[in-house]
Amino acid sequence: MAPAVPRSGDAIFANVERVNSELFTLTYGAIVRQLLTDLEEVEEVNKQLDQMGYNIGIRLIDEFLAKSNVTRCVNFRETAEVIAKVGFKMFLGVTATVTNWDSEGTSCSLILEDNPLVDFVELPETCQGLYYCNILSGVVRGALEMVSMKTEITWVRDMLRGDDAFELQVKLLKQVPEEYPYKDDE
Amino acid sequence: MAPAVPRSGDAIFANVERVNSELFTLTYGAIVRQLLTDLEEVEEVNKQLDQMGYNIGIRLIDEFLAKSNVTRCVNFRETAEVIAKVGFKMFLGVTATVTNWDSEGTSCSLILEDNPLVDFVELPETCQGLYYCNILSGVVRGALEMVSMKTEITWVRDMLRGDDAFELQVKLLKQVPEEYPYKDDE
Repeated sequence: MAPAVPRSGDAIFANVERVNSELFTLTYGAIVRQLLTDLEEVEEVNKQLDQMGYNIGIRLIDEFLAKSNVTRCVNFRETAEVIAKVGFKMFLGVTATVTNWDSEGTSCSLILEDNPLVDFVELPETCQGLYYCNILSGVVRGALEMVSMKTEITWVRDMLRGDDAFELQVKLLKQVPEEYPYKDDE
Repeated sequence: MAPAVPRSGDAIFANVERVNSELFTLTYGAIVRQLLTDLEEVEEVNKQLDQMGYNIGIRLIDEFLAKSNVTRCVNFRETAEVIAKVGFKMFLGVTATVTNWDSEGTSCSLILEDNPLVDFVELPETCQGLYYCNILSGVVRGALEMVSMKTEITWVRDMLRGDDAFELQVKLLKQVPEEYPYKDDE
């Protein structure tokens, strides 16, 4: 059988089940509002959003691998490109740009200029410390952990804080060698 | 100018911005889990989900009216059909069936056989009183209230409770005559 060719984010996005983006945006807004009411401290809300994202990421990776035909990436550089071009497109319908690599190739930035999570969102004065999209960093962290990459993810720029784009810095902390209790398909 | 023709749910759904359904499903699951942790009482979670839905519904109605070209419905029967065929399709990508009308034409059921909110969901024993999809009833209630229809919405059947479909009973309590401080376009 010929090897499966990785599919583009556009092609996958066109074929997956989808829901209206505005419904998603408003639903996500409802979560953030709920957390702000329940937890009071903005810092706690940031943590909780990240944790929710992590729990989602460790599940979404399965759908991602199943639908994208992406096979093991040769290095972290390739992984970052796949997240930006295939992963973001497949789930949010937008692509990110990868930039700001360090010389070791273990840290880079994902830049999002369009982000459906923040349509119609304005942060009130009292929420200035909030990373509204922190669920995204959690999703990326969780998904990467399932393919044996431990990362640290931080927001460098945030349009809700007046920046001109969203910039997520992804730093590879440790790449756990995969140990298979089972044999590879090949 | 020729009057705008109402558009089908399919046509609208094909043209609105969308996100991956699995991401939405998992994100919604994260809300429910969070509420269960924070509020403890299942009954309180039901109320909160309904309230979140209500807040979403009063905003989604604007997008609905803007994108669907639906004009004022002549009666509650027509309204119910529009929700089922255009509204559900436009936002969730699925349609509902309208049935079980009472003789006055003020109460009916919306039947959903396919519901993206519950993909992969199983309720643990401790959550048997939970109306997992209660956000939906809130959305419908909120949206209808914005077009002057006060309704009461209850779950009659729920697939997560072992039923063969989701059935939402929608009862029209009061139709507030619209008073315009401004003139109609026509």
